[in-house]
Amino acid sequence: METVLSENNKLYRDTEFVQGKWTTEIDVRDFIQRNYTPYTGDANFLAGPTEATTTLWNKCLDLFRQERENMGVLDMDTEIISTVTSHAPGYIDKDLEKIVGLQTDKPLKRALQPFGGIRMAEGACEAYDYKVDKDVAKIFKKYRKTHNQGVFDCYTPEMRKARHAAILTGLPDAYGRGRIIGDYRRIALYGIDRLIEDKVEQHASVEGEMRPERIQLKEELAEQIRALKDIKQMAESYGCDISNPAQNAKEAVQWLYFGYLAAVKEQNGAAMSIGRTSTFLDIFIERDLKRGIITEEQAQELIDHFIMKLRLVKFARTPEYNALFSGDPTWVTESIGGMGIDGRTLVTKNSFRYLHTLENLGTAPEPNMTVLWSTRLPHNFKQYAAHISITTSSIQYENDDMMRVTHGDDYAIACCVSSMRVGKEMQFFGARANLAKCLLYAINGGVDERLKEQIGPKYRPITSEYLDYDEVMERYDDMMEWLAGLYVNTLNVIHYMHDKYCYEKVQMALHDRDVKRYFATGIAGLSVVADSLSAIKYAKVKTIRDENGIVVDYDVEGDYPKYGNNDDRVDQMAVNLVHSFMNKIRKHYTYRNSIPTMSILTITSNVVYGKKTGNTPDGRKAGVPLAPGANPMHGRDSNGAVASLASVAKLPFKDAQDGISNTFSIIPNALGKDEVFMGDLDVSIDQGCCAGTSENFAFISIPKNE
Amino acid sequence: METVLSENNKLYRDTEFVQGKWTTEIDVRDFIQRNYTPYTGDANFLAGPTEATTTLWNKCLDLFRQERENMGVLDMDTEIISTVTSHAPGYIDKDLEKIVGLQTDKPLKRALQPFGGIRMAEGACEAYDYKVDKDVAKIFKKYRKTHNQGVFDCYTPEMRKARHAAILTGLPDAYGRGRIIGDYRRIALYGIDRLIEDKVEQHASVEGEMRPERIQLKEELAEQIRALKDIKQMAESYGCDISNPAQNAKEAVQWLYFGYLAAVKEQNGAAMSIGRTSTFLDIFIERDLKRGIITEEQAQELIDHFIMKLRLVKFARTPEYNALFSGDPTWVTESIGGMGIDGRTLVTKNSFRYLHTLENLGTAPEPNMTVLWSTRLPHNFKQYAAHISITTSSIQYENDDMMRVTHGDDYAIACCVSSMRVGKEMQFFGARANLAKCLLYAINGGVDERLKEQIGPKYRPITSEYLDYDEVMERYDDMMEWLAGLYVNTLNVIHYMHDKYCYEKVQMALHDRDVKRYFATGIAGLSVVADSLSAIKYAKVKTIRDENGIVVDYDVEGDYPKYGNNDDRVDQMAVNLVHSFMNKIRKHYTYRNSIPTMSILTITSNVVYGKKTGNTPDGRKAGVPLAPGANPMHGRDSNGAVASLASVAKLPFKDAQDGISNTFSIIPNALGKDEVFMGDLDVSIDQGCCAGTSENFAFISIPKNE
Repeated sequence: METVLSENNKLYRDTEFVQGKWTTEIDVRDFIQRNYTPYTGDANFLAGPTEATTTLWNKCLDLFRQERENMGVLDMDTEIISTVTSHAPGYIDKDLEKIVGLQTDKPLKRALQPFGGIRMAEGACEAYDYKVDKDVAKIFKKYRKTHNQGVFDCYTPEMRKARHAAILTGLPDAYGRGRIIGDYRRIALYGIDRLIEDKVEQHASVEGEMRPERIQLKEELAEQIRALKDIKQMAESYGCDISNPAQNAKEAVQWLYFGYLAAVKEQNGAAMSIGRTSTFLDIFIERDLKRGIITEEQAQELIDHFIMKLRLVKFARTPEYNALFSGDPTWVTESIGGMGIDGRTLVTKNSFRYLHTLENLGTAPEPNMTVLWSTRLPHNFKQYAAHISITTSSIQYENDDMMRVTHGDDYAIACCVSSMRVGKEMQFFGARANLAKCLLYAINGGVDERLKEQIGPKYRPITSEYLDYDEVMERYDDMMEWLAGLYVNTLNVIHYMHDKYCYEKVQMALHDRDVKRYFATGIAGLSVVADSLSAIKYAKVKTIRDENGIVVDYDVEGDYPKYGNNDDRVDQMAVNLVHSFMNKIRKHYTYRNSIPTMSILTITSNVVYGKKTGNTPDGRKAGVPLAPGANPMHGRDSNGAVASLASVAKLPFKDAQDGISNTFSIIPNALGKDEVFMGDLDVSIDQGCCAGTSENFAFISIPKNE
Repeated sequence: METVLSENNKLYRDTEFVQGKWTTEIDVRDFIQRNYTPYTGDANFLAGPTEATTTLWNKCLDLFRQERENMGVLDMDTEIISTVTSHAPGYIDKDLEKIVGLQTDKPLKRALQPFGGIRMAEGACEAYDYKVDKDVAKIFKKYRKTHNQGVFDCYTPEMRKARHAAILTGLPDAYGRGRIIGDYRRIALYGIDRLIEDKVEQHASVEGEMRPERIQLKEELAEQIRALKDIKQMAESYGCDISNPAQNAKEAVQWLYFGYLAAVKEQNGAAMSIGRTSTFLDIFIERDLKRGIITEEQAQELIDHFIMKLRLVKFARTPEYNALFSGDPTWVTESIGGMGIDGRTLVTKNSFRYLHTLENLGTAPEPNMTVLWSTRLPHNFKQYAAHISITTSSIQYENDDMMRVTHGDDYAIACCVSSMRVGKEMQFFGARANLAKCLLYAINGGVDERLKEQIGPKYRPITSEYLDYDEVMERYDDMMEWLAGLYVNTLNVIHYMHDKYCYEKVQMALHDRDVKRYFATGIAGLSVVADSLSAIKYAKVKTIRDENGIVVDYDVEGDYPKYGNNDDRVDQMAVNLVHSFMNKIRKHYTYRNSIPTMSILTITSNVVYGKKTGNTPDGRKAGVPLAPGANPMHGRDSNGAVASLASVAKLPFKDAQDGISNTFSIIPNALGKDEVFMGDLDVSIDQGCCAGTSENFAFISIPKNE
């Protein structure tokens, strides 16, 4: 078959880049692999901030200060409905900015994004004494239905009750689901016109029998084409013609950022991650360095200004949202480093430059710098990452050695742990089911221990004074069966409506035509349940009932094995729980035939979930936070860090493919040196991947800003 | 099982109505059957117009005159987006109107209805020198997608070409699909609160596995509930509380009309038919007559004012639309009379009153008074209908004896021939495929004879000088196979998008939960094709080609049997064509698993279709109108009316269940008397239904206003 090249394809025939598959089809990974320069040297090449960087960043710091003083919000747009092209260009200081583009016309002015839900948008404004323009409110109440309205039209009473009682928590029904990463690199590499051409071809390829799922795909492709044209128009307003590929490093960073900027103008997803951009951009920087048209200082300035823009990304949120997610997070996760499947490291000089922004600009929680850790990472990079971790507490680590097996070497992390191939896979985010509360429902026959209302099915409650392990397990299995079905169907409603009323056309325009979709579920309370079951089996647990016979507390008589001590008696209970619940999830139809996955992940929301969960049979008191993610309950992992990690490492990755988080603090003083820190990470990761199984943990989070 | 009655149910316990199934469930037919009074008397009881009626109608006539003088449109709303509750109450003359309610705040002021398509709305306004408000245009271009935009996002190039070349014609992609009849009677019988209660129960009944089709249903039910509440609010603005059942005839007419009014405020469907209301309303009138609280004159006044309101229903249309449908039709079809399945006639005094409006108010094309004719109709009613037909040419007749077999005795006609059980069945309207043009494509290998463009598949064209019947038939079969598939998939796109962006929530709120959906297709050019095939087989047809070898004309040498003369040689060709094309339609997936049907129906659009069809092998010249519906070509049915009817009667109803139209004029002078007219109708209908088969024609249309 003859390949007809477009004008855009031909552009590259004359460049210095090594040609390949990427030249004739959209394939960013192929471009990277053929053109990037692995870097194993140390950090000495890095340059400090330029004067422009320092001046700009000081302006930002001043804005952040004003924001804090102003109750956490500097300004809010109440009139302009945020779309890719809605706002005139905005600047911090136009003359100094090497990379331009803001969500609205002013830095930190939060955009009005009502497509997910007008009430949420109004609530966010009202929380800070702003008021959504009445004409805008009218449009979204009378003519333009929102995601939130669609969802609530279809929630069953059972779904509403489960949500109210918080056995299902944090559902993305009033805010954007996020967890979708556009391949923003494509704009820099191909220019927008070539991407449009590709999407037009994809659109034309949907013909034949017009069943709803095909019509849906075709309409989405039409929306994507529109979105690409909008990005081009938005870039033009900043004086940039992004029709063609970026011709130098500055354009590459800028073109890429425009893509991301369009995404955050359109969507206010819970996690708006940026992908894996550092090594890609390094190729353009290396070329400019070789051409002699850029210095290291200028290269670092580009990255500093880019990162600065990512730090300015904000959404209008309600106080309840902020409580759930602990602050004002955007999860602009950037995945850095890792190893290629050919054995070369994917670390480049630009991987250093990204981390270096934490020094040039100072520490910050966003963007969420995530190092894809491999035991085989270059020693110099490990050392630099460890150094930055110790000095800034602002790096997250993930197990590249394990994820590479499933996802290859061009995946990135969305939010905190969700890995996906960039531009080829996406996720329907599904928040969490509270398995600790589910255990209490099993004991109380579906009656909520806090609300004293029948929330779950009216199964027989346990009536004995002392809990019997087999009896509890039988009831618990039934209750999880119910919860899994309800959970999946609740998410089916949410994702149907999100696609219908709040489709991520910008982000999906930067994906392939046929994406792999994950249907992400999650569980909370793993260690509480494991310990509770262990207590019931190995100690004696006495029920304490209220006047209506509802079990409201437990007396644990005697000791029992606790999860987090590498004790198989209880660790296997956790393993079985994960396996069993995931299998119950798998029994159900999932929207768009997406692939069901599960995460054992909470970084901060475990606190809120704990607040809404009564006393548990492990002796935990009502309101006490659940342990985050797959962590053991605080203080119960008494056999040291290695045993604790070993317990977590037993959890079956195949049943928790969306990621397992184990959050722990390494106190620099106790370790003293970078080497010790690195060694600890190596051991952790090695323990998983070198066991030769896929049963592993995927994620280690070093708490940030704590 | 105990039946728990709502407060609303209990209301009826105290009334004079005969109770039954309808008391505890929504079942209008049961109410009618138990309570109506068949009338076999003559028309002498009828009353003339009241002074108020005459005054009001003169005002309307004056408005119509002004409308005509003003290029066909009196006034257009360019700012208020029409919804059920968008407008303040409007009146002709408030003090005189017994039945109130207008589409906008002024009579004949056309509403702005952009949900089907903003460009269509703008085009309609611009055609009459109005301009849609720019904020409204912005809403529908930027934030609220329309049906039209959705459809064009998903049309394939092939669909666009087929539409452009007019082998697929009149597709409802830029206007409302119509052909859905709300059971407006329900509001009068039950009051809106009871209907809401019922819909709430239906909404709650959609649980379990949340697949897209179930989510869609649940969301639609939520929208329906909202629509019912809106109708109530709209009625309140006119000072009417429609929460409870109508307590007298005036309320019954008014409550019913509010339902219809809400529908035409929300939708501008091609056919907005009203159903089968006369006998239902007669029950309320009879009760009031018996109670002595109403006179015949007052009863007639209610009906006159009601019909007057229906005559004022107008939509903003483009000139192209008006050209296709010949004028400014709304197809407010009211189905009158017919027989019950228990043998009693469904004719009541009110059937007379409806027809009598043509005398009290004068003749008018709308509402489209349609008599469901049975040979067993009471002689007096037949006579009165014949009389009105002869004096006003404003009655349409349909074959009740045949449709009753399939649809029972509470069906109504949507548009001209589409029969459906009221509130239980609906139709996805699908316009027409031009089978005459398809034949030309078969001969020219998919090249359009007018555009000289490749529109159909590149099958081998016929290259011989004289057409060979077997060769033509083989090619034609292949080309119809292509056309049927393309047609169905085009309609799949249209109906998916109509549901998504322009859902008929008012009309569907007045349906059962689980409706039977028909997927209506239609064909044009039946007689031209039959005659062409007959010419090819029985005469000699020589092709005349242009410089590129495309056949552009035909020389017919010798005579051939022509459709419409009861000659099986050609009539069977028509029969086979209908059967064959319908079977090709049946091969494909139809949206929402609706039941595919077909109509052989064109009343006026055959003129436009003819314009777009080149010379045909039957000797018909390019541009000459196709025959309407299943009619023989004008002048070719030389064996008289009975033979002509016999040919049409052979068409298989099971393959054309959406209706077969045979339009013919009976010239009163030639007949002289009502009796002859009636006799002719009896013969026509009897010929079909008494043959003891289901193969029949469904419809006889007496052209109106001609």
